[in-house]
Amino acid sequence: MKKNGNDGTKALVLLSGGQDSTTCLFWAKKKFGHVETLSFDYGQRHRIELKSAKKIARLAGAGNTAIKIKEFEALKHNALLDKKINLKGRDSVNKKLPASFVPGRNILFLTVAAAFAYTRGIKDIVIGVSQVDYSGYPDCRAEFIRAMEKTLNLGMECPVKIHTPLIKLDKKQTVQLAIKLGAMEMMAFTHTCYEGKKPGCGRCPACVLRKKGFDEAGVKDPAVEGN
Amino acid sequence: MKKNGNDGTKALVLLSGGQDSTTCLFWAKKKFGHVETLSFDYGQRHRIELKSAKKIARLAGAGNTAIKIKEFEALKHNALLDKKINLKGRDSVNKKLPASFVPGRNILFLTVAAAFAYTRGIKDIVIGVSQVDYSGYPDCRAEFIRAMEKTLNLGMECPVKIHTPLIKLDKKQTVQLAIKLGAMEMMAFTHTCYEGKKPGCGRCPACVLRKKGFDEAGVKDPAVEGN
Repeated sequence: MKKNGNDGTKALVLLSGGQDSTTCLFWAKKKFGHVETLSFDYGQRHRIELKSAKKIARLAGAGNTAIKIKEFEALKHNALLDKKINLKGRDSVNKKLPASFVPGRNILFLTVAAAFAYTRGIKDIVIGVSQVDYSGYPDCRAEFIRAMEKTLNLGMECPVKIHTPLIKLDKKQTVQLAIKLGAMEMMAFTHTCYEGKKPGCGRCPACVLRKKGFDEAGVKDPAVEGN
Repeated sequence: MKKNGNDGTKALVLLSGGQDSTTCLFWAKKKFGHVETLSFDYGQRHRIELKSAKKIARLAGAGNTAIKIKEFEALKHNALLDKKINLKGRDSVNKKLPASFVPGRNILFLTVAAAFAYTRGIKDIVIGVSQVDYSGYPDCRAEFIRAMEKTLNLGMECPVKIHTPLIKLDKKQTVQLAIKLGAMEMMAFTHTCYEGKKPGCGRCPACVLRKKGFDEAGVKDPAVEGN
């Protein structure tokens, strides 16, 4: 297997510690072999996911680096960062978007990931966005990903590629992919709930979407007690 | 004059406190009227420029917000962040780029600026990049700026425009523009030196380029003692 990173690492996976990014980690391990993971501490109210990410990376035999991102806190205007804002409401600026929209989040995550990859000679980045069940986030669409990739290539003069294995999958199909990749046991350690609750509040948009996926795939969610 | 920001602000200027961004501030004030400025504390060795930015914004009657960016410090590999690296050398990853290249810097700055603008209803961003005297930075080219603009528009579902008044100007022409805009007195307070020295070491690539511009324009640099 050809190694392209400075230390043999072949790809960098953005790992939030949730269901989707964990599925991507397994996808990347199968495709690339030796992978690294990157997590972001951006002041999210569900910061507990960082612990999940660390644990999942360790169990999967991948390194994990958590990077602090302070600038979103300075701009605090959305429900993922501000507990006073209702998670089920709409974005205060663009009513078409959900209140959980963090403007520029994936642009910033991918930029930091690309800079991290650049310094380590890694050319492949994996992110678990989906344009099907994307909750209305514009930075989860394929069109955005292609523009982002071009921007990174031009801005860093480096041929980085962004892989999005879930882009065309709904939650049911993502669960099915996780089964196929042998990632289901690991799902017990993933964190999805926006409220930061473990095993999940069951009511926030992220919990509702996760439950829908497992229900439709006809399997039990190993993160839910009693399952 | 039509106001498009929540509070009447019409444009956001990225103000480093240097000669180019200060010229852009004057350009933006002329074009848009009421403008805001944004500065970044990203661990640069010439952090003294943040004080210059604050002072210049105040004197120009524009607000200034400084945002801390921690992630580049975590990736530290270049001469602007690490005093142990020679500023006149080459980038450790891509030998075609200078050692002062911070991978993803302008992508990140523009993303944070766009997020800041988004929350305030501002649609116009001004940045002082030039593809003529650009020291080999790929993120100062017009092609990059257009890709970045598209990425921001798609990723934030918001029609933000990036203005680059210096993109086709060399340092001589930038000095001439500053004269035309009545910005020359303000140049006394600008900071350019990568070494963080005031009035400037005179030897680092930034100081050398600044001196060349003033010399070729045939005017004295008000920031240099004795002028």
